[in-house]
Amino acid sequence: MTRKGILFVISGPSGVGKGTIKEALLAKVNDMTLSISVTTRKPRTGEINGKDYFFVTSEEFTRKIDRNEFLEWAQVYSNLYGTPRNFVINELQKGHDVLLEIDIQGALQVKEKMPQGVYIFINPPSIKELANRLSSRGKDTLESISKRLAACEDEMKQVKYYNYLVVNDSVDEAVRNIKSIIIAERCKIENLNLR
Amino acid sequence: MTRKGILFVISGPSGVGKGTIKEALLAKVNDMTLSISVTTRKPRTGEINGKDYFFVTSEEFTRKIDRNEFLEWAQVYSNLYGTPRNFVINELQKGHDVLLEIDIQGALQVKEKMPQGVYIFINPPSIKELANRLSSRGKDTLESISKRLAACEDEMKQVKYYNYLVVNDSVDEAVRNIKSIIIAERCKIENLNLR
Repeated sequence: MTRKGILFVISGPSGVGKGTIKEALLAKVNDMTLSISVTTRKPRTGEINGKDYFFVTSEEFTRKIDRNEFLEWAQVYSNLYGTPRNFVINELQKGHDVLLEIDIQGALQVKEKMPQGVYIFINPPSIKELANRLSSRGKDTLESISKRLAACEDEMKQVKYYNYLVVNDSVDEAVRNIKSIIIAERCKIENLNLR
Repeated sequence: MTRKGILFVISGPSGVGKGTIKEALLAKVNDMTLSISVTTRKPRTGEINGKDYFFVTSEEFTRKIDRNEFLEWAQVYSNLYGTPRNFVINELQKGHDVLLEIDIQGALQVKEKMPQGVYIFINPPSIKELANRLSSRGKDTLESISKRLAACEDEMKQVKYYNYLVVNDSVDEAVRNIKSIIIAERCKIENLNLR
């Protein structure tokens, strides 16, 4: 019994813990290909080119836009981010599931082109908890944090465009729920090629 | 965040292991109300009235049909089986999930009245394996087994009316997959009452 590849999109407000959840999930789920974004942003400490992102110059990014090489792309603050189109589509055609971790703006663009994907919204337990997380990870300026919190309440209204909601109370619980969503989607009749 | 009760229907060919899976599942899933069928069949050894089934006479069963008290009812071999309508609907309205284990004929009837339910088809690994299981459990006559196997291949064509397919290769694996389906459905946006 073969089945089609499924696109799983993990998304949610900035600082909600998408990256941490993605890493923990990949360690626990079999047969999942990670989609890697292209970005013009500078690598943060510890980030590796070709693993965390494909880091490119603004000129390279613009060339890729012109060649229609992105499933979506967006400017977030002063940086550009994009999802390579061919990579995702080729993997799905081979019957491989693809995991895409992306911000809300990007997820909604991808959904226009890939409505058959599975869209999972990661919610913070509360705005206050999100503020604590953004401060304590120490990767962002105070100005950047303020911007993100203001955006977050608006972003949470987009949950209606998603298929699933997972609250990130604890990473273990969130990962367990997303893993269940992946297993369930793999059992869905419409995702199976039944003879 | 409250949510609606979800009706989960576990179904599949006779002897596929629905009963065993249901018992193992109930031990591992929280907050699940079991729907108990009404039947005119005689209790098998160890079966308890009000737990495994409500055992009634043919006269009582007919009165319940006349009063429209069943979500579905059917004759299977020489016995009558029915699902009490009010019990299921009341539980769902209270926000409780309900688990219904039922044969394929019954599941398809329930689906007509409750299309919003989650219909899970349990498949045997193969017809040969199903024959072995039916023989080895020693609860059925040879004639009954032959009838069931003939019916099974036809029944397996009904999978297209279900939402999910779970192959009962091993009970543990099947239960793990159904548990994942339950968790995933509880995370579905359409099943949540978002403010």
